[in-house]
Amino acid sequence: MRPCNALYAQAGGVTAVINATAAAVIRAWRARGEAVGALYAARGGMPGVLREDLIDTTAESDATLSALRHTPGGIFGSARFRLGEPEEDRATWSRIASVLRAHDIGILFYNGGNGSAVTALQLAGLEQVCGHRLACVHIPKTIDNDMAGTDASPGFGSAAKYLAVSLREAAADVASMAGTSTRVFILEAMGRNSGWMVAAMGLAANDRQQPPHLLLFAERPFDPDDFLARVSTTVAHHGYCVVGVSEGLRTADGAFISALEASGPGGEAQLGGVAPRLAALVRDRLGLKCHWATADYLQRSARHIASAVDLAQAEAVGTAAVDFAIAGRNGVMPGILRECDAPYRWRIEAVALHEVAGREKRLPAEFISPDGHHISAAARDYLLPLIQGEAPQRFEDGLPVHAAPALVPVPCRLPPWQATGKS
Amino acid sequence: MRPCNALYAQAGGVTAVINATAAAVIRAWRARGEAVGALYAARGGMPGVLREDLIDTTAESDATLSALRHTPGGIFGSARFRLGEPEEDRATWSRIASVLRAHDIGILFYNGGNGSAVTALQLAGLEQVCGHRLACVHIPKTIDNDMAGTDASPGFGSAAKYLAVSLREAAADVASMAGTSTRVFILEAMGRNSGWMVAAMGLAANDRQQPPHLLLFAERPFDPDDFLARVSTTVAHHGYCVVGVSEGLRTADGAFISALEASGPGGEAQLGGVAPRLAALVRDRLGLKCHWATADYLQRSARHIASAVDLAQAEAVGTAAVDFAIAGRNGVMPGILRECDAPYRWRIEAVALHEVAGREKRLPAEFISPDGHHISAAARDYLLPLIQGEAPQRFEDGLPVHAAPALVPVPCRLPPWQATGKS
Repeated sequence: MRPCNALYAQAGGVTAVINATAAAVIRAWRARGEAVGALYAARGGMPGVLREDLIDTTAESDATLSALRHTPGGIFGSARFRLGEPEEDRATWSRIASVLRAHDIGILFYNGGNGSAVTALQLAGLEQVCGHRLACVHIPKTIDNDMAGTDASPGFGSAAKYLAVSLREAAADVASMAGTSTRVFILEAMGRNSGWMVAAMGLAANDRQQPPHLLLFAERPFDPDDFLARVSTTVAHHGYCVVGVSEGLRTADGAFISALEASGPGGEAQLGGVAPRLAALVRDRLGLKCHWATADYLQRSARHIASAVDLAQAEAVGTAAVDFAIAGRNGVMPGILRECDAPYRWRIEAVALHEVAGREKRLPAEFISPDGHHISAAARDYLLPLIQGEAPQRFEDGLPVHAAPALVPVPCRLPPWQATGKS
Repeated sequence: MRPCNALYAQAGGVTAVINATAAAVIRAWRARGEAVGALYAARGGMPGVLREDLIDTTAESDATLSALRHTPGGIFGSARFRLGEPEEDRATWSRIASVLRAHDIGILFYNGGNGSAVTALQLAGLEQVCGHRLACVHIPKTIDNDMAGTDASPGFGSAAKYLAVSLREAAADVASMAGTSTRVFILEAMGRNSGWMVAAMGLAANDRQQPPHLLLFAERPFDPDDFLARVSTTVAHHGYCVVGVSEGLRTADGAFISALEASGPGGEAQLGGVAPRLAALVRDRLGLKCHWATADYLQRSARHIASAVDLAQAEAVGTAAVDFAIAGRNGVMPGILRECDAPYRWRIEAVALHEVAGREKRLPAEFISPDGHHISAAARDYLLPLIQGEAPQRFEDGLPVHAAPALVPVPCRLPPWQATGKS
């Protein structure tokens, strides 16, 4: 019997190291030689599967695979995708099965976060629903670090390192001139629902005397008066104040600070961003010069300052996923198991997807310091190992060299997909 | 006769490599051994001189000097400072002369931008005004790159590299998901009056097919309709659009976009930032999902991605300044003279300060492409050499190690300074 083919698909927001996972999957697959079929990739994630828009990874050179280790973003394209239950979304299920069947695909590597893990768990049941045998292995990634079943989510460590490094550097700048210029600096991190990224900024301080002086977590309601009082006290004591804030900061009644209406007479929509709003507050109420930065995608694509540990884990989950799939495992995910904090030791283990899908690993309450505005020692013990080591990359003409993959399409075998309203 | 002492002072906005200049000055001074006196540094720039707040650099270890090469910000502190003409600001002139005289200071190294060069030129005339003999050597630095008399301003190359690298990385992220998510990404650069920093973002594109697709220069009036039309066309052609914009972007009638009022019903002040305003425009008028980032101080403190050429030039101007001062030069600046574009060759030459002070090197019109929205080949030829080479730094526990200088104060010899209203 001819061995089946496999499909790799990226899902959800991309990271600085998800392409390293892709390269690891391709390498591990190739290492199996004749024992396995072809490995395809979906262009643009699951919507690409529905379009039968597949890429033959066989055409990618070793040089491209090496370059993928150094390339941020998702080289095959990614998408947020939600699959309905079979009874309500029959056409989509059938189309997926048809595409997989048409291309002899018996293994799906789904590289996503905890939302995508729900889809992966659904697809692990494809045989029961559609009669097409599929081993579905989910591969973890997300800068949000909110996945259950794994010590960290690949992508998070690099974003964390970027934020801690950037905050430490910007703080050195602010400290230089605080006597006569900017007194308050605010750096905004991503993370709508949780403060993992803000916590990472706390690593820039070796103790509470060093910046950041204040962290504003998505987990704690924002109290403007308390915030301003803390900024004042910090400026009086240190001469300046550096603040790390989550884009998900909310008021006590749950309203996102970033969504507060700031429309002008012309009715312009909100401008977005928590940091500029807090900066306006500091300027208006305290009369202090305030600067702010919003790193946005820079923090999840900064491959040039990636964490070596994060990169190693991103590759390890890719390699393990191939082992699991070839061993016939279905509905599992390679999770990272922490064996020791210092020195950091970890290994990969298989985690059942029903222990991951739909669950959210929130920042533990004990990771926030008792005053609610910094990280605890426990948080440091957890976070610090994840940003260890630098992961140098190739530069050419002063700029990072990114992969230029061949992206050879797999010829279609089915009629074009007519998306229904449902999917 | 005992050799005189010297004073080093930082002025204006700091950079990722100004401390490398400081370390070079200290090393070059020390290399003169017994032939020279002590080298002091002003804490917090010229206001520190007025306060007689001086630091004895003799106490700084070789390890600290090495670490300064890797430390962003201004380690001795910096300030914007404007000195009036002698007839209107007599007290300040006298105080400066008194402090210099009290500490036998006959040489001043003033490390600043083109605004600070005016002060340096004034102080080069201190002997005529106050009878205290002083050799004043200005040392160039500024991320704005708007100094005359030098091929580039140390600090600019590193900020330029940060912006080009960050834009290339974020663009890879956006490209991955544009099919179903963010279509437009806007990165905002510093530079109130000129587009040097925006031009640097243009380096991320090897040709016009690559991002950034659009650059919005401070030099060109902003036309919202034209901008939106270009964004639409780009999205239609490439699937996404990456924009680099100057914080100094203005409307045709000269109003800063970032200063346009966006006050809400409560009368909140403006929130600042050009990028969020453009993003709101794209969302409201084109209905496209848009993300934006404002790097602010991150771009001028990102020592971790500094340019090796910039670092070398920052050190070279420091070393040359010591040579010039000891040779008795007054009112000069070590400028960088470009000998060749490719391979980039440069050398240091002495430039008279009256050719630098108060002059502004604007982005040449021919550095902007004919359509007004990208850089020309001439701009690439000029800019590319400045971001060449990486300048690795020491990391500890995953984070950059910054200098922890001794900052030993020089005992005061004068009564405290009572600042007058004037200064």
